[in-house]
Order: sequence, then structure tokens, then C-alpha cells
Amino acid sequence: MEHSAGVLATLSEVQYALDTFYFLICGALVMWMAAGFSMLEAGLVRAKNTAEILTKNVSLFAISCIMYMICGYAIMYGGGIFLSGIMETGVEEGFLYEAEETYSPSSDFFFQVVFVATAMSIVSGAVAERMKLWAFLAFAVVMTGFIYPMQGSWTWGGEDVFGMFSLEDLGFSDFAGSGIVHMAGAAAALAGVILLGARKGKYGPNGEPRAIPGANLPLATLGTFILWMGWFGFNGGSVLATAEAASANDVAIVFTNTLLAAAGGGVTAMIMSKMMFGKSDLTMLLNGVLAGLVTITAEPSTPTPLLATIFGAAGGVLVVLSITTLDRVFKIDDPVGAISVHGTCGILGLLLVPVTNGDSTFIGQIVGAITIFVWVFGASLIVWSIIKAVMGIRVSAEEEYEGVDLTECGQEAYPEFVMK
Amino acid sequence: MEHSAGVLATLSEVQYALDTFYFLICGALVMWMAAGFSMLEAGLVRAKNTAEILTKNVSLFAISCIMYMICGYAIMYGGGIFLSGIMETGVEEGFLYEAEETYSPSSDFFFQVVFVATAMSIVSGAVAERMKLWAFLAFAVVMTGFIYPMQGSWTWGGEDVFGMFSLEDLGFSDFAGSGIVHMAGAAAALAGVILLGARKGKYGPNGEPRAIPGANLPLATLGTFILWMGWFGFNGGSVLATAEAASANDVAIVFTNTLLAAAGGGVTAMIMSKMMFGKSDLTMLLNGVLAGLVTITAEPSTPTPLLATIFGAAGGVLVVLSITTLDRVFKIDDPVGAISVHGTCGILGLLLVPVTNGDSTFIGQIVGAITIFVWVFGASLIVWSIIKAVMGIRVSAEEEYEGVDLTECGQEAYPEFVMK
Amino acid sequence: MEHSAGVLATLSEVQYALDTFYFLICGALVMWMAAGFSMLEAGLVRAKNTAEILTKNVSLFAISCIMYMICGYAIMYGGGIFLSGIMETGVEEGFLYEAEETYSPSSDFFFQVVFVATAMSIVSGAVAERMKLWAFLAFAVVMTGFIYPMQGSWTWGGEDVFGMFSLEDLGFSDFAGSGIVHMAGAAAALAGVILLGARKGKYGPNGEPRAIPGANLPLATLGTFILWMGWFGFNGGSVLATAEAASANDVAIVFTNTLLAAAGGGVTAMIMSKMMFGKSDLTMLLNGVLAGLVTITAEPSTPTPLLATIFGAAGGVLVVLSITTLDRVFKIDDPVGAISVHGTCGILGLLLVPVTNGDSTFIGQIVGAITIFVWVFGASLIVWSIIKAVMGIRVSAEEEYEGVDLTECGQEAYPEFVMK
Repeated sequence: MEHSAGVLATLSEVQYALDTFYFLICGALVMWMAAGFSMLEAGLVRAKNTAEILTKNVSLFAISCIMYMICGYAIMYGGGIFLSGIMETGVEEGFLYEAEETYSPSSDFFFQVVFVATAMSIVSGAVAERMKLWAFLAFAVVMTGFIYPMQGSWTWGGEDVFGMFSLEDLGFSDFAGSGIVHMAGAAAALAGVILLGARKGKYGPNGEPRAIPGANLPLATLGTFILWMGWFGFNGGSVLATAEAASANDVAIVFTNTLLAAAGGGVTAMIMSKMMFGKSDLTMLLNGVLAGLVTITAEPSTPTPLLATIFGAAGGVLVVLSITTLDRVFKIDDPVGAISVHGTCGILGLLLVPVTNGDSTFIGQIVGAITIFVWVFGASLIVWSIIKAVMGIRVSAEEEYEGVDLTECGQEAYPEFVMK
Repeated sequence: MEHSAGVLATLSEVQYALDTFYFLICGALVMWMAAGFSMLEAGLVRAKNTAEILTKNVSLFAISCIMYMICGYAIMYGGGIFLSGIMETGVEEGFLYEAEETYSPSSDFFFQVVFVATAMSIVSGAVAERMKLWAFLAFAVVMTGFIYPMQGSWTWGGEDVFGMFSLEDLGFSDFAGSGIVHMAGAAAALAGVILLGARKGKYGPNGEPRAIPGANLPLATLGTFILWMGWFGFNGGSVLATAEAASANDVAIVFTNTLLAAAGGGVTAMIMSKMMFGKSDLTMLLNGVLAGLVTITAEPSTPTPLLATIFGAAGGVLVVLSITTLDRVFKIDDPVGAISVHGTCGILGLLLVPVTNGDSTFIGQIVGAITIFVWVFGASLIVWSIIKAVMGIRVSAEEEYEGVDLTECGQEAYPEFVMK
Repeated sequence: MEHSAGVLATLSEVQYALDTFYFLICGALVMWMAAGFSMLEAGLVRAKNTAEILTKNVSLFAISCIMYMICGYAIMYGGGIFLSGIMETGVEEGFLYEAEETYSPSSDFFFQVVFVATAMSIVSGAVAERMKLWAFLAFAVVMTGFIYPMQGSWTWGGEDVFGMFSLEDLGFSDFAGSGIVHMAGAAAALAGVILLGARKGKYGPNGEPRAIPGANLPLATLGTFILWMGWFGFNGGSVLATAEAASANDVAIVFTNTLLAAAGGGVTAMIMSKMMFGKSDLTMLLNGVLAGLVTITAEPSTPTPLLATIFGAAGGVLVVLSITTLDRVFKIDDPVGAISVHGTCGILGLLLVPVTNGDSTFIGQIVGAITIFVWVFGASLIVWSIIKAVMGIRVSAEEEYEGVDLTECGQEAYPEFVMK
């Protein structure tokens, strides 16, 4: 029996090791999404603004990691404000295996930190081609260090560091973050876009929208495939365990449903585009795939594969309508369609959860969506306004005409290619 | 002993969890190959046809997933025709751990579905630059929902859904699909190319072939690296288990041999190119790497690493000869060399299996190769012909001259770059 | 008890399987770094030299794999000179599970072989735009088959195949290869660059350096993200085990510290660039991220996350100073900054190890760094000199002006885009 206790302990260690490894690989896939957003956005802006949006994407990712280590993780998951989340379980104390943990604390930090970067990546696309680089980075510090973690503490964190409420108690459920990550990012983006205004030339004298095509569609396609692949880590890792048969099955269902929802979104967006514009618009197809992914993210573990495909397909229809409406009706200039993909479809995802998950309620989902939106949009509006007052958020008209690559980065993305 | 039974059950669950996780990661790597094909093909066509081939690649992947869920998986692996493969083991019934399964049924679907997309991706490159987009997509529906799964049922499926024969009984062995996936894709492509004819300007008045260089070689190189990486999942996952020492060793050997066969193929194609053309052609180098990968795919688990390198090297030599011959002698216009890479080298791979795998026979391999080729080529020819009759498969001469990006997708891949 | 022995054996097999799978996935991530170097270098050279540097990167990777199989692995880790490392444990003998191994021998080879390719990739960037392709490949054969494995045998190999000394006995510690891989690559590059001289037009008549911007910054950014992702495998896999709680914790810490060091390097390089040049240079930001990664590579397992960030930040500062100094003061023409990123920051990484790892000493680190540098630089200088004497290493002035794509590869990377 002595013997048997040793076997049990080793077995438990192996499960701990497998769960940790699974977390790390899923986290690496989510980190890879940062490359996906970079390529997607770099492909969808004009050549003259490409180096700057790449600079934004790399530096926002770096800032997200550092701010989340310094305070974001602690705010979201408890344990004090500064550094505690990561330092208490630090190397001095060993990050040692403790009976109550089922995976390494460091792997949890690693997995969570790449999520905050995702939320921030959503913002960079929507404000592209006219925002000051360092104003954007200043916002990134506050968003990743405070605004995102606060709403995260009300939901995934279980309880709020300031002793406020928990949305989970209200019947709110958001498996991997259709609302907490994607809609949150879109809400922060929307606040920025409203303060910032549209790009010069985006709307004609009578307010008619003009298409400003992206400069490099292979890059945008690559970015979409990267995001699709990374999303397996995003949703699959959110099961939070894989070392038992039940959790392994859950992870496998989540991977399958994530794949199929994206496929569904791509197909319907493609058909919508053909029907509405007479052409099979590649950009809409890519947005449809991403819309399917955002839609299923709120609950990828309970739908059947067929239902997951249908949910994704609904996202694909919605994103085309949302992009068209925001552009034509509301004159919201979002160069990459991020607000529609992540915001509109994020809400759709939240509202679809109760269809297959009995633990959530429509009321809870609506309350949760509103809470997250009001908090992130409101807080972002205040922060953007302060930054605007202090240093300004929009480049000058000449700089915008010239392209922000030269004025912000002092270099061109494609210095040798002759441009039209 | 009560205790010990619990330990055994947990241990069995951990193995189940590890096998499932391994399947999912390998599947994610194979899914990533879709990005590889997209970048490879987008790099090897002309700029004016780039957005369309990207559209094709993303949408064929989405269609493959949906068709395989609806009927392909059931046809190939049994359980009825519609939805059964995936729905019977669906969420209502729990996808639960059952003693007889060694991994999650969903993970099996996830792994298999990305294979059918690979087969279909091979087609898109060969018919590039002159095929109608929606004709291609119509073919994709039939190929992924019926033609591919049928021949898959005769081989990997063990037995045919319609009660026909099993190729495995004849001494046919194809570990990860040199024939079942790669040659099958090439056979479907060949049928399409023959019906479609060559691109305008590809052959001169006396039938002399003209080089039509790809517009973006960094993309093509990226695509090759993506495929190389994804192939570890393609071949490694085809061991179908990793949670015991023997299967773990097999997977490790497969990874190593896959790496080395690609290296061998690259080196010989590079040398062939230098000897035949006097220059170190990058495109031939890339095709050599892919040829090595296709060649080893039929049996990556039994050769020694040295032998795997030599097999890959043989593939690298063959692919250069095959591309040149198809182009110059047979006037088959395959813009990306897909038929040579996947077809010719797929056959080579099948024929090399008996050298190291005693369970297969040369007769069995030849019968298998012929069966797959005849079925896929014949069925594809019929389907392409029907599509041709109904909606046409080739764009008009003006559209071809203009580029299919504008006529099919209504957008350019590089709208700002000035073209020669 | 009979029963219990069976359980123990199975448990041991599962740990063996998990460690093997972890090795293979980490190895696949390191292999992926080859794509990262390719894209980084292709983005940072001029368009006319892009196809050639891609050719170099793909073929050096293939050569590395083959040479390391033939003799490199055996030299580095013992077992004779030729093929033995891989063949002794070959398929004939079964690659079977043996009690003393904790993971598959093939997985060890797979993981180690991608490291040698990394070292060689570093060289290609530094000698870009003026070296003969086949001279470079000849060097690659010797570097990957002999120079790199020899110094690897003194360190990671434990003991030298020729019965020489072990650096580990001297208090030298290099966790994942800041010195053994990165500085070694930089030393070989430096020797080549000195013999080769600067690119035409790089320095003005009075020796003033001129900026030669890279042609495609999205590619360079993609390459950096790929390297960042691949580095999780590079450092994480160097723990060499993950199937127990302690090793799982180590791997998780290594992933986290690797992420944060890169973030730190990016942020400081960005700030340095803004302060020194007045602009937020994207290229410097990318180099800062890579500098942070190289710096933490010598010891990612013992620093706290905060300290890892600070170490990376120090690397980000150093790399900007080093690039500027090498360029302006020493007139060393390194088109991609590889010598600064991998060499200078590699040394920094080695010197920081004793700060957190008590098993290493500053003296040991200095002796180790000097030993590796002297060996690799000296041996490389001899080999480059022999190649120079036999076949020449530099293309003619006309070829350099024309671009090496046309003269070496007979093709252009972007044949349709009009160049300035």
C-alpha cells in the first residue's frame, strides 16, 4: 500500500504535467494569434501605413505582457495588486507542485497573458491609418493593465478585487471570451474610433462611403489562417484541463466545433458577398471565417458539430450586414472591420450560449454583455479623452496624407516597390 | 485491489487523454498546411490571379470541413451516410470515454477532416489562373463529400460502405497517404487540367513551353516551410497513438524521417536544377522539399533515417524530371507543379513501401495505386465534365487576360503596387 | 504485487511517451524558426537579393539536417563519428524503449538537429547580398557537420569525442544556447563578414555608413513573430523533460520568462530608437525582441518573471548600441544585425547566468564564451579562407549591382512589381 501511494502520487504528477504542457501549447498558439492580427491588419491597410501598424502590433504585444505581469493578472485573478499574482508563486517560493493545483501556476499566467494581448490587438486595426503611435501605446498600458483585467475579475476571476460583484452569479457564461475578450476589445476600439473620426477621403461630400482597399491581400489571408490555427489554443485551452477522459473529450469537441464554426462563417459570408456585391470578395470571406470563430467562442463545448457550423454560419451572415451597416449608416470608419467581427459577433456569441448551455440564461447573457460593454466603452472613452487632451490622438492632415510610416517610424514598409 | 482498479482506470484515462491531445495537436498542424498551400500557390501564380487563388484556398478548406462532417467521414469510416460518424458520438450521447476507444472520437474526426482538405488543396494549384471560381467550388463539394471518402473507405476505412472490397487485404499499405491523399489530389487535378487546357500564352506557336514566373517567391517559400512543419502532424499523427513507449518511438521516428526526407529532396532538386539549368532555381528547391515529403509519406515509420533521406532524395530528382517532362513533352500546364509533386512522387512513395515494410507487396502497391488513380481520375473527369456542361469551367479569354482577381473577386491582391 | 509492477511499468511508459511528445513538439517549433529566419532575412535585404537568400535558407536547413545525421550528432553526443548516433539506435535495433532512457532516442536527435540549423541560419543574414551561394553552402557543410558539433561536445555533450575537456567542469552554464548556438552562429558570421567586406555603397567615400532599407517589412515582422513562437520550443525543450511536476514547472517558467524577456527587449529597443533617432524604428523594435530572446536563452529557468523582463530589456538596449557601433565605428556590414542580436546579446546572456544560477561562475562563463568564440571564429576563418582560395566567396561587382537573384538563381523574387 506504501507502494500504491507512490504510484498515486506519480500518476497525479503525470496529470499535472500533461495539463501544464497542454496549457503551454495552447498558450503558444494564442501568442501566435498576435502574428495573425499583425498580418491581417498589415494586409488590410494601405502600403503607406503598414510599417506603423506592424510597429503597433509588436509593441502592444510587448506592453500587454509586461502590464499583465505587473498588475493585470493580480487584478483579474486576485492576490493583491502589484506583481503578486506572479511573484508570490515565484521562483523563490519555487512554483512548486502543490496538491491543490492541477497545473503549474506559471502556465496559467502564460495562458492568460496572451488573451489580454488579443483584446488589445483588436483595437489596433480599428484605429489604423490616422492615430498617433504613442497615444495608442499609452492607451494600451491602461487597457491591458487595468480596464481589461477589471471586467475579467467580474467574470473569469470569480470575484472582483475591489469587492464588487460577480457576473457568473447572474447566470452569465462566456467560455473563452466572445464578450470578455472580443467584445471588450471592440468596445475599446469603438470609443477610440468615435473620438478619432474617419480617415480623410473615406466619406465623400455627401457622406457616401468609399472603399479603401488593403494593400496586400496574401498577408491578410495568412493572418486569417494564423488566427484560425491559434483559435484552437484560445478555445481549446479554455477547457482548463485535458488530463482526464472527460476533459480530453471536451477539448476535442472544442477543437472540432471551432474548426466547423469558422468553416460555416466563411461559407455564408462568401455567399452573402456574391449575392450582395456580385463578386466573391476575399476580404468578406476572411471576415466571415473570423466571425464564425468569434461567435463560437462564447460556448464551443456544448453545441453539436452541426450546430456549431450553423452558429458560425449565422456569424458569417451577421458580419457582412454589420460591416455594411456600420460603414454606410453609422459612418464608423473601421479599416479592418474589427468592430463588426469582434463586437457584433461577440454579442451574437454571448446570446447563443443559452441555446446549448443550460447553466446560462438569456437575461444573464444580456446583463453581462451590457456590463462589459458599458465598463470598457466608458472607461476607454475617458482614457482616450485624457490622452487626446494631453498629447493628441490624431496625426496631422499632412502626416495622414504622407502616411504614418514615414512620420511615426521614419521608414517605409515597401521602400523599393513603386506605388500607384 | 479496489484501489488498484482505480489506479488502472486513471492510468487508462491519462493514456486516452495523451493520445487525444496528440491527435488534436497533429490535426492543428495539418490544418496549418491549408495556410501553406495558400501561400505556396499565391506565390507561384501571377499577381493578377492572386486574390482569387486565396479565395479558392480559404473556401475549399471551409467546404471540405462541412462536407466531411455531413457525409464524407461517415462514408469513409462507416456508420451510415449522413452525419452519423459525427452525430452518433455527438454531445447528446456524450462523446464519452468508452473502454474500447483509445482517444476521443471528436479528435479522430478533427484529424481526418484536415486530410481531405489537403487533398483538395492540391487541386487548386494545378487549375490556377484560368478556372471559374464557382465551378471549382462545385467540384470541391463532390470531391470532399464523395470521391475522396470512397477511396478512403477501401483503404484506411477498412471496408467500403457499399460492401465493396478492401485494398488492405491485397497487400496495399499507405501509412499517411502518399496515394490516398496526395496522388488522389493529383489525379483529380489532372482530370481538371486536361479538360481545362493550358493558360493562354503558356505554349508558343510551335508548342514550346514558356516560363510564367510566380509573382511572390517569399510567399511560396513561406508556404513550403508551413507545409514542412505541418507534415510532422500529417505523418506523425498517422501513427494514431503515442501514449505507450512503442507508439512514442514510432512517432519520433516518423518525425525524424519526415524531416530528413524533405532535406534529401531539397538537396537533390537543388543539384538537379544547377546541373540542368545552370542556376539554383528556388522554385525547384521548394518542389524538391515537397517531393521528399510526399515520397516518405507512404511509409515514414520503417526506413532508417539514412534510408529516409535517400528516399526523399529520389523524390527530389524525380520531381524535377517530372515537372520538365509534363511541361515539355505532354504540354500539361500545371502552374505550381502540383501533379508532379503529389502525383508522380506519390506513386514513387507507394512503390518504395515494400523496400522497408514487409507487410506490403509490390503487386499490392501497384494494384492500390491503379485503383485509386482510376477511381479518382475517372470520377473527377465525369464530375468536371458535368460542371463544364452546366456552368462552364473556364473563364473567358478576356477575363483570363484581365486576371481572375477582378472578374471573380472584384478586387486586386496588390492594388497599390505598380505592375510590369 | 505482480499487478502493481505492471502499473509501474505502464506509468513509466506514459512518462516516456509524454516526454517524447514534448520533445517532438518543441523540436517542431524550433524547426519553425527556420521559416522565421527566412522571412526575417528576406524582409531585410533588397528585393534583388531576396530569392537568393530564400534559397540559402531553405538549402542550409536541408544541409544541416543531413550533415548532423551523418556525423554532427555523433561528434556532439558521442558514439563514434559516422552515423552512429542515429544508426546504432536505429530501426533494426528497434529504437526500442529501454529502461534507462526517459524519452525516445529519435526525439532527441530531432530536437538537437534543429538547433544546428538555427546556428547556421544566423550566418546567412550577416553575409547577405554579396556572397556566392555555393561558397555559402560549402561553409554550411563544414559548420554543421564539424565546427558546431565540436564546441557542442565540450558543453552539452558532456565530453569531447577527441578526449578533450568539458566546459561544464569549469563552471560554465548555457541553458539553451545563448553561447553554444547564438554566439557561435554570430562568430562564424563575423569571420565571413570580415573576409567578405561590406556591400558596395554601404559606406560613403569618407566611411560614413548609409542605410540600406529592407524591401519588405511585413515579412521581417512575420519572421520575428515566428522566431518568438519557435523560441518557446527552443528554450522550453531545453529543460529536457516535462513528465514530472518539477520539470513541468520548469518548462512553464521557461515559457513565461521567454515571453517576458522578448517583451522587455522590444520595449527598450523601441524607446532607445525613439530617443536616438526621433522615430520608432520598426527594424530596431524587431531586433529588440530578438535581443531579449537571445539574452534570456542562457538561463530562462532561474530568474523571476520580473528579472527575466529586466534581462531582456537590457538586451534591447544593448542591441541598439551594438548595431550602431558595429556599423559606424567598426564598419562591419551586417545587413540584418545578426552579429549584434546573436553575438553581443549572446555574450550578455552568458554573463547574466550567475546572477540567478548559483551553479555557474562569472569566470566559468567568461572562459566558456572565449573558448566558443575563439574556436568557432578561428575555425570559420580558416574554412572561409580555404573556400575563398578555391572558389571565391564574393560575387563580382556587376553581379552585386544586378542582384544575386538573377545571377545565382536565375529568377526574381518579385518579377512583376516595378522597382524604384
